[in-house]
Amino acid sequence: MLSARAWTRLGPLCRPGPSGLWRGTRGHTSASRLDLSGIYPPIATPFTAREEVDYQKLEENLHKYAQIPFKGLVVQGSNGEYPYLTEDERVEVVKAVRRSLPSDKLVMAGSGCESTRATIQLTEKMAAAGADAVLVVTPCFYKGKMDSRALIEHFIKVADSSSVPVVLYSVPANTGLDLPVDAVVRLAQHPNILGLKDSGGDITRIGLVVHKTSRQDFQVLAGSAGFLMAAYCVGAVGGVCALANVLGRELCELERLCVTGRWDEARALQQRLIEPNAAVTRKLGVPALKQAMEWFGFHGGACRSPLQPLTEAETEQLRRDFTSNGWM
Amino acid sequence: MLSARAWTRLGPLCRPGPSGLWRGTRGHTSASRLDLSGIYPPIATPFTAREEVDYQKLEENLHKYAQIPFKGLVVQGSNGEYPYLTEDERVEVVKAVRRSLPSDKLVMAGSGCESTRATIQLTEKMAAAGADAVLVVTPCFYKGKMDSRALIEHFIKVADSSSVPVVLYSVPANTGLDLPVDAVVRLAQHPNILGLKDSGGDITRIGLVVHKTSRQDFQVLAGSAGFLMAAYCVGAVGGVCALANVLGRELCELERLCVTGRWDEARALQQRLIEPNAAVTRKLGVPALKQAMEWFGFHGGACRSPLQPLTEAETEQLRRDFTSNGWM
Amino acid sequence: MLSARAWTRLGPLCRPGPSGLWRGTRGHTSASRLDLSGIYPPIATPFTAREEVDYQKLEENLHKYAQIPFKGLVVQGSNGEYPYLTEDERVEVVKAVRRSLPSDKLVMAGSGCESTRATIQLTEKMAAAGADAVLVVTPCFYKGKMDSRALIEHFIKVADSSSVPVVLYSVPANTGLDLPVDAVVRLAQHPNILGLKDSGGDITRIGLVVHKTSRQDFQVLAGSAGFLMAAYCVGAVGGVCALANVLGRELCELERLCVTGRWDEARALQQRLIEPNAAVTRKLGVPALKQAMEWFGFHGGACRSPLQPLTEAETEQLRRDFTSNGWM
Amino acid sequence: MLSARAWTRLGPLCRPGPSGLWRGTRGHTSASRLDLSGIYPPIATPFTAREEVDYQKLEENLHKYAQIPFKGLVVQGSNGEYPYLTEDERVEVVKAVRRSLPSDKLVMAGSGCESTRATIQLTEKMAAAGADAVLVVTPCFYKGKMDSRALIEHFIKVADSSSVPVVLYSVPANTGLDLPVDAVVRLAQHPNILGLKDSGGDITRIGLVVHKTSRQDFQVLAGSAGFLMAAYCVGAVGGVCALANVLGRELCELERLCVTGRWDEARALQQRLIEPNAAVTRKLGVPALKQAMEWFGFHGGACRSPLQPLTEAETEQLRRDFTSNGWM
Repeated sequence: MLSARAWTRLGPLCRPGPSGLWRGTRGHTSASRLDLSGIYPPIATPFTAREEVDYQKLEENLHKYAQIPFKGLVVQGSNGEYPYLTEDERVEVVKAVRRSLPSDKLVMAGSGCESTRATIQLTEKMAAAGADAVLVVTPCFYKGKMDSRALIEHFIKVADSSSVPVVLYSVPANTGLDLPVDAVVRLAQHPNILGLKDSGGDITRIGLVVHKTSRQDFQVLAGSAGFLMAAYCVGAVGGVCALANVLGRELCELERLCVTGRWDEARALQQRLIEPNAAVTRKLGVPALKQAMEWFGFHGGACRSPLQPLTEAETEQLRRDFTSNGWM
Repeated sequence: MLSARAWTRLGPLCRPGPSGLWRGTRGHTSASRLDLSGIYPPIATPFTAREEVDYQKLEENLHKYAQIPFKGLVVQGSNGEYPYLTEDERVEVVKAVRRSLPSDKLVMAGSGCESTRATIQLTEKMAAAGADAVLVVTPCFYKGKMDSRALIEHFIKVADSSSVPVVLYSVPANTGLDLPVDAVVRLAQHPNILGLKDSGGDITRIGLVVHKTSRQDFQVLAGSAGFLMAAYCVGAVGGVCALANVLGRELCELERLCVTGRWDEARALQQRLIEPNAAVTRKLGVPALKQAMEWFGFHGGACRSPLQPLTEAETEQLRRDFTSNGWM
Repeated sequence: MLSARAWTRLGPLCRPGPSGLWRGTRGHTSASRLDLSGIYPPIATPFTAREEVDYQKLEENLHKYAQIPFKGLVVQGSNGEYPYLTEDERVEVVKAVRRSLPSDKLVMAGSGCESTRATIQLTEKMAAAGADAVLVVTPCFYKGKMDSRALIEHFIKVADSSSVPVVLYSVPANTGLDLPVDAVVRLAQHPNILGLKDSGGDITRIGLVVHKTSRQDFQVLAGSAGFLMAAYCVGAVGGVCALANVLGRELCELERLCVTGRWDEARALQQRLIEPNAAVTRKLGVPALKQAMEWFGFHGGACRSPLQPLTEAETEQLRRDFTSNGWM
Repeated sequence: MLSARAWTRLGPLCRPGPSGLWRGTRGHTSASRLDLSGIYPPIATPFTAREEVDYQKLEENLHKYAQIPFKGLVVQGSNGEYPYLTEDERVEVVKAVRRSLPSDKLVMAGSGCESTRATIQLTEKMAAAGADAVLVVTPCFYKGKMDSRALIEHFIKVADSSSVPVVLYSVPANTGLDLPVDAVVRLAQHPNILGLKDSGGDITRIGLVVHKTSRQDFQVLAGSAGFLMAAYCVGAVGGVCALANVLGRELCELERLCVTGRWDEARALQQRLIEPNAAVTRKLGVPALKQAMEWFGFHGGACRSPLQPLTEAETEQLRRDFTSNGWM
């Protein structure tokens, strides 16, 4: 395995040389590891009426997001409908985001595919498109065979070959599997694996991951706004939250309250975010996220098929989850 | 439905009057509701070699627990092997605990059965045996039919008839069902339902329950040590933790750190408790809890059949989960 | 382990002698193992308006069932609401059934409890009450610990001590666990364990159990009418079917078609039974079973709380599932 | 909706005309719906040591399969590692199969993708590559939103646009969702949707689908060898069975026994196939299937990463599951 190595967005360039070996790798000190701490919206992908990517609307959203103290954006997390984009679209959207976004904001790009080889290839394209880090979801189709052995192999191969840092991504609601803690602990030792986005929400597990990776400066990001405060409490350093597409300032405020130890205020704010968050994720999904974006001044629009628009009853339920918590 | 009513362990007696209505209802102040805040071990039931309840050893454990700043004890939570006790044994054990325990410690007795009528009857016996409150688990055999409607009906009937306050108990790992949040919110309005022991560990759900019952002074207890700190963080007032049978002082210390806002120290302590807690609950269960009790100076002993003693490999795993976190 | 032994309902009495060897209850020769083949309704328990067991109505149902070519009755399977009966009631109902039922019909009595000791005791009471065999459900509260080792131990102890033959009972929809195939195969070697009621409905598993117990003359009963024909097809010898409380003659007809190899007619009949069966089991449960019994001339009545009566919408759904298949 | 239409493999070419009505690919009359009945191996994809598709070995396998009385082959079912192939590879493999395979064997090609638009495009490529029908798996990433409404929309759009017949594909072990029966029943009315490959194995569900689509001449294929006989028993017309890659003649023999009503012989053969089938599917997956293929004279070879080779212990377990049933 590689010896300790670290990455920085600000340090000298270090990219794979002609031999395919890492340049600069062992030259970095552990002080220069990319700092992931903060809030990220996993941005939605706006489409035209004909279901084409609407780059104009995307850009308008990005201009608004640039005004919010996000640490960066996640492009093509689950809320970006990435499984519905072609590989070319996936890369093009990342390029568009990198172009529009101020350079002090991180771009974390989803590059996970089912096969290791496809993931490696897309990871390189994402790096070339300007991603500062890649977010790599667990492969899941053959879930019965995706044990720690297979997943560790997969992520190590991807991290070995990637020219940007890798963030692990566990999202059992979509994939049907949780990246096992022992695999996370093993992978945290890889110098090019910086952290984990954990969308499962099992706070005991999150605390344990923080505990068992404490020597690796491994960074855990909460994958949903519903448990953001609790995740900070047990040692997470930030959050990738669908709801940040809608209530971005409020989530950054929640971050500030947590990191400054103002827990009572944090709790009051956190509590009002649980139901709106559940509505745009677990309960009603991406179509609800996009509808709520429209209500709050962003471009959401329709989803690609087979995702369906909300029914009227669902729209009412969504509205109630925002109004009853004082957001509308 | 009953009008509002409150309870105290120390105030004047208020029992149902001849009309069947509650006396004292609005006469009590909100200060006189039974305060559940604090740590409780859900005590194990020691057996003799012939699988009889060993009251002698139980009493010796109780004397040791009396030295620890617990708020009280839970008698016949899941760790007490209550499904393996006869009704007479269940009541007798509560009597024995009440006799031995200093009167300033609460006795919370499990009185849940599958049928409403059996639960009502056992609740009364528990109250007569000296329980300060009863812990009523969700019925679960017909889990497909145990929707909010059925569970609300069940708990209201039990709470209406009980002479001591009722604490709801949701433990999906054993029952296969989670008491739905909407049912908890509805039941929190009942004057004789004081709180919820939530062993599921979904911190988003716990936060939401706290949020939606904030006007009812409803008290949420974490049902396991693995998420105790996070539960305090989002608004729980205490914990019923199997691990408190073994590391009781440490859990009371964790409580103290949380309620005094010393979160960094709390986090360090919490993290070391996750693996030992998982070992004596989810991973290895009651036999492991009882084995660990032996190591830490308490009487654990064997379980009733069909619970099996630990294998040698399991015992080693259990030991590792304690030693690797510095407890042995 | 016990040496080979077999049971018959008709032979001379034989009980365990002083040596601990079996003498048999209703007698045996090694060639005369109790034949379980045929259809059994797992009878519902009628209650009065005050939720007391209504023995009068029970008897009236029994007289009607006596006219149907059932092999026998199951008393206190899941549909009998046995978890809602006291131990005394459980025994009393078996006595009542045995008294009313013609002696050529088998009485199979549910005697499963959570603890091994309670199961042993209730088994003996059931035998004394006249049960020809006992149906012993998997204990399930500590489901994380109910592995093959624990379950094998449990069933062997029960079978060793029982004076009547034991039938294993796996009903994952209620218990949350499936008796593992390797445990069934091991237990099939016990001379006092005659068979398995499998309510899970995994036909591959049922076929495998038949295959791997073929040398033991082990008898598998389908636990639901929805897969009765398929179960016969892969080697089951009968069925314990909730729907037999309602459409008993039709299920006996389906049995006849299967055992005489008239598969095309069997298929046509089987298909019309799937939706009514799902309605009174998985979809709407015991309250629906009891409602349908009323429609078809039996006494169903209400359930004990917390089981709730059907809503109007549920009643309509139930009716449609019978009418659309030509049964009403 | 389209008016009734039917397909045949042998008739004159017919494609959608300017009116948008169907003319058919390989032609049709309304009496000549494509007959799917029979056994299909869902073929594995052989790779070289560098994980490239090995067309040479694929062709050698195809020559052997051509000697077995299969109805046809499924190319890129789950066992073909299709999620690990690029779109170009998926199409190229279908072309290679069509070229090698005798023209009287059907080629059913997997064309399912997550988005509707991608599925439509790949479906057309598969048709152009020579597929006689396409097998379209349920999209599953946003499983919480893939209700009947979304799935019906998806499959109707795909079927409307496809120039070859569509077979629905439900494989919950991989996708985490079961195509709901009501959706199947609705989709069965579409003239270009011919049948369902059901890999879930719930025989009650399979019987119900057959029952509720009986007027549509809808054809159900068992998706695994473990329940093939039972599926025939309740009305299925064939099977797509991973094990047919290994024991193809035996599965065709089982088919023959079932369709000629020789159920006792069928049962004896079926029983010996359950464990080998479980080994190459649920228990040990595609790597085991490929290993077993090697043992039986076919080219299996390695899988693409992240699928891992079998461990030694797994190989032994696999061998036992074949030897203990008399196949090696």
